[in-house]
Amino acid sequence: MTTVRVGVNGFGTIGKRVAAAIAKQPDMTLVGVAKTHPSFEAREALRSGYRLYVTGTGDLAAFDRVGLRTAGRVEEMLHDVDVVVDAAPDKVGQENLHLYQEAGVRAVFQGGEKSDVAEVSFNALANYAAAKGHRTVRVVSCNTTGLARAASVLTTRWEVDHWEATIVRRAADPAETKRGPLNGIIPTLQIPSHHGHDVNSILPQLHITTTAVVVPTTLMHVHVNNVRFRTGPKDAAELVEALRGTARFHVFARWEGIQGTPQVMEFARDRGLGRSDMMENVLWEEGVRVDGRTATFFQAIHQESVVIPEVVDAIRAMFDLAPDAAHSIAMTDRALGIPPPP
Amino acid sequence: MTTVRVGVNGFGTIGKRVAAAIAKQPDMTLVGVAKTHPSFEAREALRSGYRLYVTGTGDLAAFDRVGLRTAGRVEEMLHDVDVVVDAAPDKVGQENLHLYQEAGVRAVFQGGEKSDVAEVSFNALANYAAAKGHRTVRVVSCNTTGLARAASVLTTRWEVDHWEATIVRRAADPAETKRGPLNGIIPTLQIPSHHGHDVNSILPQLHITTTAVVVPTTLMHVHVNNVRFRTGPKDAAELVEALRGTARFHVFARWEGIQGTPQVMEFARDRGLGRSDMMENVLWEEGVRVDGRTATFFQAIHQESVVIPEVVDAIRAMFDLAPDAAHSIAMTDRALGIPPPP
Amino acid sequence: MTTVRVGVNGFGTIGKRVAAAIAKQPDMTLVGVAKTHPSFEAREALRSGYRLYVTGTGDLAAFDRVGLRTAGRVEEMLHDVDVVVDAAPDKVGQENLHLYQEAGVRAVFQGGEKSDVAEVSFNALANYAAAKGHRTVRVVSCNTTGLARAASVLTTRWEVDHWEATIVRRAADPAETKRGPLNGIIPTLQIPSHHGHDVNSILPQLHITTTAVVVPTTLMHVHVNNVRFRTGPKDAAELVEALRGTARFHVFARWEGIQGTPQVMEFARDRGLGRSDMMENVLWEEGVRVDGRTATFFQAIHQESVVIPEVVDAIRAMFDLAPDAAHSIAMTDRALGIPPPP
Amino acid sequence: MTTVRVGVNGFGTIGKRVAAAIAKQPDMTLVGVAKTHPSFEAREALRSGYRLYVTGTGDLAAFDRVGLRTAGRVEEMLHDVDVVVDAAPDKVGQENLHLYQEAGVRAVFQGGEKSDVAEVSFNALANYAAAKGHRTVRVVSCNTTGLARAASVLTTRWEVDHWEATIVRRAADPAETKRGPLNGIIPTLQIPSHHGHDVNSILPQLHITTTAVVVPTTLMHVHVNNVRFRTGPKDAAELVEALRGTARFHVFARWEGIQGTPQVMEFARDRGLGRSDMMENVLWEEGVRVDGRTATFFQAIHQESVVIPEVVDAIRAMFDLAPDAAHSIAMTDRALGIPPPP
Repeated sequence: MTTVRVGVNGFGTIGKRVAAAIAKQPDMTLVGVAKTHPSFEAREALRSGYRLYVTGTGDLAAFDRVGLRTAGRVEEMLHDVDVVVDAAPDKVGQENLHLYQEAGVRAVFQGGEKSDVAEVSFNALANYAAAKGHRTVRVVSCNTTGLARAASVLTTRWEVDHWEATIVRRAADPAETKRGPLNGIIPTLQIPSHHGHDVNSILPQLHITTTAVVVPTTLMHVHVNNVRFRTGPKDAAELVEALRGTARFHVFARWEGIQGTPQVMEFARDRGLGRSDMMENVLWEEGVRVDGRTATFFQAIHQESVVIPEVVDAIRAMFDLAPDAAHSIAMTDRALGIPPPP
Repeated sequence: MTTVRVGVNGFGTIGKRVAAAIAKQPDMTLVGVAKTHPSFEAREALRSGYRLYVTGTGDLAAFDRVGLRTAGRVEEMLHDVDVVVDAAPDKVGQENLHLYQEAGVRAVFQGGEKSDVAEVSFNALANYAAAKGHRTVRVVSCNTTGLARAASVLTTRWEVDHWEATIVRRAADPAETKRGPLNGIIPTLQIPSHHGHDVNSILPQLHITTTAVVVPTTLMHVHVNNVRFRTGPKDAAELVEALRGTARFHVFARWEGIQGTPQVMEFARDRGLGRSDMMENVLWEEGVRVDGRTATFFQAIHQESVVIPEVVDAIRAMFDLAPDAAHSIAMTDRALGIPPPP
Repeated sequence: MTTVRVGVNGFGTIGKRVAAAIAKQPDMTLVGVAKTHPSFEAREALRSGYRLYVTGTGDLAAFDRVGLRTAGRVEEMLHDVDVVVDAAPDKVGQENLHLYQEAGVRAVFQGGEKSDVAEVSFNALANYAAAKGHRTVRVVSCNTTGLARAASVLTTRWEVDHWEATIVRRAADPAETKRGPLNGIIPTLQIPSHHGHDVNSILPQLHITTTAVVVPTTLMHVHVNNVRFRTGPKDAAELVEALRGTARFHVFARWEGIQGTPQVMEFARDRGLGRSDMMENVLWEEGVRVDGRTATFFQAIHQESVVIPEVVDAIRAMFDLAPDAAHSIAMTDRALGIPPPP
Repeated sequence: MTTVRVGVNGFGTIGKRVAAAIAKQPDMTLVGVAKTHPSFEAREALRSGYRLYVTGTGDLAAFDRVGLRTAGRVEEMLHDVDVVVDAAPDKVGQENLHLYQEAGVRAVFQGGEKSDVAEVSFNALANYAAAKGHRTVRVVSCNTTGLARAASVLTTRWEVDHWEATIVRRAADPAETKRGPLNGIIPTLQIPSHHGHDVNSILPQLHITTTAVVVPTTLMHVHVNNVRFRTGPKDAAELVEALRGTARFHVFARWEGIQGTPQVMEFARDRGLGRSDMMENVLWEEGVRVDGRTATFFQAIHQESVVIPEVVDAIRAMFDLAPDAAHSIAMTDRALGIPPPP
């Protein structure tokens, strides 16, 4: 079988996970990864058997000096791929666009870029088909992905009048040691926050308003969702079943003892899909309430990994490798070890 | 002038602030404070000139051994007061009730007690008159106080259809070193949280629903409020002016550089009302939005001190020392140094 | 080949790691694990294919009710094992001792127990041979293990006059959400701290003094070591090579970009030995100094996993399954994926 | 009485405290304070009755726009003062030096500057007389101040052979919301850390070595001191009495319940010297041990305020306003409310 050849430009939180995910897909080949500076992560890339290229302001000699063997600059990687996943820091993807155009390769961007970086914004559950045949696709950010997934489930089954979400955001990733606050809550004073608008880049019909606060944790975001329906689920159990029955949702029962995001991450470490990742939207069965036409529920989103399966699906959609979203999601999740719905 | 004689039973976060506040009121006399164990706080009580009594499971000899002079047990304090402010830990107030009844003194309880501990639940702005003449009054908790104040302002001027609030809660007070989580978010899985119900103990007509999450900070709570009006303010400026023009609201302007609760607390330290306290509801001018019939706004609530002026007003209402809420609030705030509305 | 049959009593932070480690050893068989209450961890035990027993105050019916299939009570597990690893909470191991004696099985205890719980205290590098043939062995705690390993390397090569260590301790494990402090430093006022004394339980000749402070992090402990030699390494490079050349030491170079424990844990997640574990003592090449007869160096210790390979070696020593420490360590580390010294 | 006219250039954590402290001294006059940007702190300066000048890259118009009345640029302030206290961010003091020279005023710098910024480095207990008559003086940093104070007490009474200190540093001040780490420990890999060298800028004879780690707290630093004496105190009690009997030391007894820095700060809030400040070195009576010729003790240092009285004394020394250190310290502390030794 011919496989799509994929390069990953950027090897931080997202890039290293994308590389590992691509390497597991039966219909894709990981050509290599590109990194700016030598670091423990560059060495782990080589140990994982990835070809390592130098990108951005990086310098081949810097890698040589510490004994890390590189395969050249990112332009050489682009020469050998059908598609590049841009995993550069926010806003740098936009600057990289011309590189990809010059190399004549397709590109997948991350949600840290503005939506106009690509022809289409993407979430597998929400608008898989929209990416078909496109040359540039943007996978929306972690929070937007979490909201879009949940909204897809609800809008498919019921009629949503209005969705309000408060996003309680983690302040930094676990290894980002220069970001605060150490002790305090920082409200995002722009109301509404940009997340709702970003959901509309893939679900344009949804009436959604979001607000956000930043809190001193590194583990996960938590969304507090208030959904007003025109016609909705008859009770919490019906809503829980709809979510639990959908791929990329994980619903914890009360007896499991998951008090908050620390235990979710502990579960993820025990489950062992790699890097303690939790690629599903996480819900608590007891943290869902339906009262008349209003549903309220919490969901936790692992900012480091939730978009990873979406990037895989985006590639599959662009190259039309699967008949539809359901087939792509099933193939991706099987390869990554994400359990299918019960 | 005859003054109301007040004792404070419990000398922790709330008790020590109540004692200091009572001592500053022209129409009240602080008879003494009662504490269970000797500690730095007990010594500071004596240094402040308060008479110190022993309460609960405490032991007079334990104070003697470390050279802290006590004036007897709490029963002796009760003998000399007209009203006691119970500042015992949550649920202990209920156990103390019979002591106060036996001593024939009136009592003010804190919001950590259930509402049936007292004849009436209280917030000065919301239902001052309701406490008049009562023998037992419960000042609602910090979060409920913050919500009740804001709701009073809005329901007085406009017609509120429905209030939704997400309460982002601090996990512990600054000196509570045995509480977590250190890193993570704990959603309060009971939906709605108890806070809305508690607001209804003083504003029974308000249609309010609350949800809560606990986050790793010690500084303040932050409320994300979504208010749907039947008839409401025409724009954010009108809403801001209504709040800014009310006692016990502090609205920061953008140029002041208050990014979040850490800077609010820094402001409070600089202002110097004592113990870095911020007894007002805190808002950000730019963190208020009105869109059609919906208002969204953040407010920060200093859990340690926001109820203190309310306790003073509760006493004034019980003993009918002021003609109305406005007079009591003005007298309390002048004594405490809280600036009047501009 | 006949293998030693091992049961694990307790399935928390340590127990689940021990079970996974035992299951990977060629000369041991994991009979099952015992847990008190149903939880997500119990379900993961079953998913991992472990037989699940009920221990302590636990109740078989509680597991049945949530659909977790158990194989009986811990006594039944003890019937089928040669040795039990006690991974109960601190001090409960002592209470369990009689169970193991009644069942006639050998037992490995954790460092949370007092040293007299077992015939001998153990660390593979420091005193492997001392455990040979014993029926009860105590693997010392994470901090003591880290110190004993480093001390073994240094005392083997040079003559140590005096070792001083300041232990900067993590306040809680990642999923322990009820422990603080959220913001602050808690010195362990007992000087010296118990750790030095505990090191002497396996290295009785070492002159060591330790002090400790607790800080608000969940990730790792950090030791600041000051070692005075009678005859010592000639420079930092010699000391670094001695440590780097020893099993269960990992020394990071400057270019790798490991600023502190957050990046060490990120490395561990990337490396992927399971649960983001880092079972080696971690050093920074640039964080080692030798000045005359004094060496100063930092080491970071992953409290959750550093003792795991030691438990495996303890069993091997008790049953005399390997000719010496070096052979046991090599076998353990190969099975666990810990790289051998370069 | 003629008083020394003082200006404060910079109005952040240090500057605002220095201004308040100067304003309370009987032999000094606060001419004004200078700030770069308008903010809540600028407004509080005006509310405190200080004249406000614009410094650095700041812009008079920016203050005008938000209604903050300024008295001109910093050069005008310098015109009216005898001495300026530079409280600019680290390294900016060096850049400001020429301004002060051009204006012909004396200057006090902070410890964030290199020692060659001024003619002499200063700590009141350690080398008060050394600043007499100088035109530029640098008050050493918070950690160095804490060490120098303790070393002064010990070296005055006994013969110190060698001092080793591990400095457990707070990562950010309470209102610095952009600094991390949120969760983790960052060792300062440079060994020894700069603090020991800095102590030698005022106590050149002391043999001192320091190491440092950064931890996620905002409250205070904690020093773990190991002091080897040639001739030293006979027991811990003797050492405690020496420290307790010295100005600017505060020793907590066991019964006071001070577990760590959170309770120290709570004590400071209750005591009420302003901004929750704790200007003394803080020790725990039970956290002091003397074993033969070695003393080990913890001390906590409030990074925001510990240097404030030292700045006052530095001015007094420069202008020879007091006969000696003891008189200056007593005058400063009386004005600031710091209690004298018992």
